[in-house]
Amino acid sequence: MINRRLDYETAFREVQKETAKIITSGPALVREYVSYLTEVTGKMMRARALLACALDEQGTVSYDAVRFAAAVEVLHLATLVHDDIMDDADLRRGQVTLQKKAGKRTAVICGDFLLAAAIREVTAVQEQDRYKSFDFSKYVQNIALGELRQNINNRNFRLQPFRYLSIIDGKTAALFEASYHAGALAGATDERTQKLYRKLGRYTGIIFQLTDDCIDYENSTDSALKPVQSDFENGVVTLPLIHAFDCQPELVVKAERNELSKEEVFEAVKRHDGVGYTHRTAEKYYKLAQDAMQKIGMTKEQKTILGGLLEKAFVGLKG
Amino acid sequence: MINRRLDYETAFREVQKETAKIITSGPALVREYVSYLTEVTGKMMRARALLACALDEQGTVSYDAVRFAAAVEVLHLATLVHDDIMDDADLRRGQVTLQKKAGKRTAVICGDFLLAAAIREVTAVQEQDRYKSFDFSKYVQNIALGELRQNINNRNFRLQPFRYLSIIDGKTAALFEASYHAGALAGATDERTQKLYRKLGRYTGIIFQLTDDCIDYENSTDSALKPVQSDFENGVVTLPLIHAFDCQPELVVKAERNELSKEEVFEAVKRHDGVGYTHRTAEKYYKLAQDAMQKIGMTKEQKTILGGLLEKAFVGLKG
Repeated sequence: MINRRLDYETAFREVQKETAKIITSGPALVREYVSYLTEVTGKMMRARALLACALDEQGTVSYDAVRFAAAVEVLHLATLVHDDIMDDADLRRGQVTLQKKAGKRTAVICGDFLLAAAIREVTAVQEQDRYKSFDFSKYVQNIALGELRQNINNRNFRLQPFRYLSIIDGKTAALFEASYHAGALAGATDERTQKLYRKLGRYTGIIFQLTDDCIDYENSTDSALKPVQSDFENGVVTLPLIHAFDCQPELVVKAERNELSKEEVFEAVKRHDGVGYTHRTAEKYYKLAQDAMQKIGMTKEQKTILGGLLEKAFVGLKG
Repeated sequence: MINRRLDYETAFREVQKETAKIITSGPALVREYVSYLTEVTGKMMRARALLACALDEQGTVSYDAVRFAAAVEVLHLATLVHDDIMDDADLRRGQVTLQKKAGKRTAVICGDFLLAAAIREVTAVQEQDRYKSFDFSKYVQNIALGELRQNINNRNFRLQPFRYLSIIDGKTAALFEASYHAGALAGATDERTQKLYRKLGRYTGIIFQLTDDCIDYENSTDSALKPVQSDFENGVVTLPLIHAFDCQPELVVKAERNELSKEEVFEAVKRHDGVGYTHRTAEKYYKLAQDAMQKIGMTKEQKTILGGLLEKAFVGLKG
């Protein structure tokens, strides 16, 4: 097959098709377990970003970019499947999780299957030489490392802001960075620009994660479509709470003794404006991201898509 | 680095070093969790087989073969780590498992890390063109599929022999086939010979699995260094039991009603000589493997190593 060029919307539809093909590939028994995942893939933000980074002056991307975008989305799914095992989560975006539906055993294996499928998709790209510097397996390792660090810091109520930011940099931002990196390589920009794209990806990922952290303290279970258990109840310590603990250190000891209720936690975050603090932190990354965007000579279409994604990540914090 | 050539024993020591390097790579926190795995890697049979397949007339192998062998061993470890989660196993070869030691969460992530590390090792081989037909990620997918099928058949007391054999063909034999396949490619033999090597690998893997199945019904916990729970107690139905059920179908209904004790199962397998039946099945694969070996023009050294491995797989059944 030739590495044909597609416009952005056509390419995005191809990614959806390709992702569904990978997920439902293999024998019926895998299809049965993972095909429902196509319904929970959501907006495919990483794929959209990747394609946008790959756009040329004529507004087209190569089919290789489609493959990378599909790989990134399938890898994202694999991490979600394994995440749900670790969090013992019953729901994800309002849907019953695979680990709840089919059991932990099946979920472990299906995650492995998807992980291998994602990496396999990358090996199928045509212009191998062009992507020599793109080490996808390394990104997979870094994401695993990020999760491991998050896991180790479960119920660590003394976690400091800078440590927390470095954890989400690994965990969430690595997948965004991978997307922007692959897209930039597909777009054939120079090395300096590629670095800027990677930075933009990392910052956007960090902002998205900080948004997510705020939602946990802002909204009710219903509107967030998240599992009933809050981050705090799962032992996950995020920035709004870290700030509250910083302001009121005696709460740390209470939390360590299991004497802090969910209600007290929410109250403390509110009192010390943990959400506002998190928003201000996100703002710093927002400005860095804008700087990076300005330094990259983007086309209008790229600016619209990547800038829009950045806005969404940041403004989402307000409501 | 040049793709230097090494003799078999030097190459094997390099595999040990490379495997340890991969496992202990990355930040301290991964090292902490997985470094103990170097102690439980055992005899590295798959690596030995791979190197043997790659041997040339002069008794040397390329460094690429070393990389493949290390990748196969690390992948093997990754599957063990995830297997232990699924089996809820506390012990493996007399050592406390990672999932028991560090928890399921950590084990899921460390397995992912090792999986990515294994695939990454393969991408680092020098003679890329030579291994174009070797789809390592596809093998990873097949292994996952095999495990999924085994999992689905957990507590399926009506499993038929041919179905069981096709399951272990996927689960255990796929990794052996991958080893023999990569080795054959590194050895630069013609396509027909490569196919024979792959067959030899599959058969050897199946025989090893059948050995393992018998051990569960022959030995005490102590000598097998296996977890205290037997296959039957874990809902894993293997060939010795399948044969006993075939001979005495009324036991199936009893098992399905949870009315069959471990002792009754062992007694039934003994009465109907389930171990003997399994041994005779293994013998068929043993003969097919010998046929394949004869058709391959092997050097004396290759015959000694690969034949020795085959003998070990088969004779192990007797004691």
